[in-house]
Amino acid sequence: MQVHQILRGKAQGQIITVAPSTTVADAARLLAERRIGAVIVSDDGVQPLGILSERDIVRDLGRRGAICLADKVEALMTRNIIGCSPHDQADSVLERMTNGRFRHMPVIEGGKMVGIISIGDVVAARISELAMEKEALSGMIMGN
Amino acid sequence: MQVHQILRGKAQGQIITVAPSTTVADAARLLAERRIGAVIVSDDGVQPLGILSERDIVRDLGRRGAICLADKVEALMTRNIIGCSPHDQADSVLERMTNGRFRHMPVIEGGKMVGIISIGDVVAARISELAMEKEALSGMIMGN
Repeated sequence: MQVHQILRGKAQGQIITVAPSTTVADAARLLAERRIGAVIVSDDGVQPLGILSERDIVRDLGRRGAICLADKVEALMTRNIIGCSPHDQADSVLERMTNGRFRHMPVIEGGKMVGIISIGDVVAARISELAMEKEALSGMIMGN
Repeated sequence: MQVHQILRGKAQGQIITVAPSTTVADAARLLAERRIGAVIVSDDGVQPLGILSERDIVRDLGRRGAICLADKVEALMTRNIIGCSPHDQADSVLERMTNGRFRHMPVIEGGKMVGIISIGDVVAARISELAMEKEALSGMIMGN
């Protein structure tokens, strides 16, 4: 299964981003309101500069306390984000997420962000794909 | 694959818990230091009273701001936790986690907590299990 097929199955709507100068407190409010685990940081909504996750916030809270809430998200965000193409396969994306220990990935096409997929989306796709393949193989055995 | 087999594959060590009276700030510090996404709340280390996750903290930060950091974890924790038995199957546990939208589950045996599994552990187990079953079926087809 390819990434664009996974995206099609999601209620996409717009891609939620925050500007680099947003405070961490405001970003936490957005994560809570939209019920999302991470948000892409971008100046223009199409070029990702970084990503800020619940984990980034809690790790910094643990290290520095409430003072981090007044910081700009650009101080806390993960800059080195790994994206994928709409034509990448679910299993290769899942491997990159598992190895890199992150849960969200922007989908990039022609230099622009066209969606975001989470590890939950990819896992669901990969498990249904493997189950279908197994089913097909069982069918071949039973049919013979 | 059963839950106890998944637990065996993990570097278990002790089960990390916090007392219900711990502050949210201290719990955030523990999550950051131990690099974990959630911690079981317990008085005695064996009976889970609730669970506090990075998500619980960020949701409350978003709603109420930094004031929540001085609260006790018992005010924020999810009380209605769903556990599993060491003999539950990976696919049934994964289904419960996906449907309930949570990522951590205490493993309970004889009324006592014997481990904690995360959705990452279960997904890895389930995917390797499905891949092996597919491999075995392919082998049967090629062999015939």
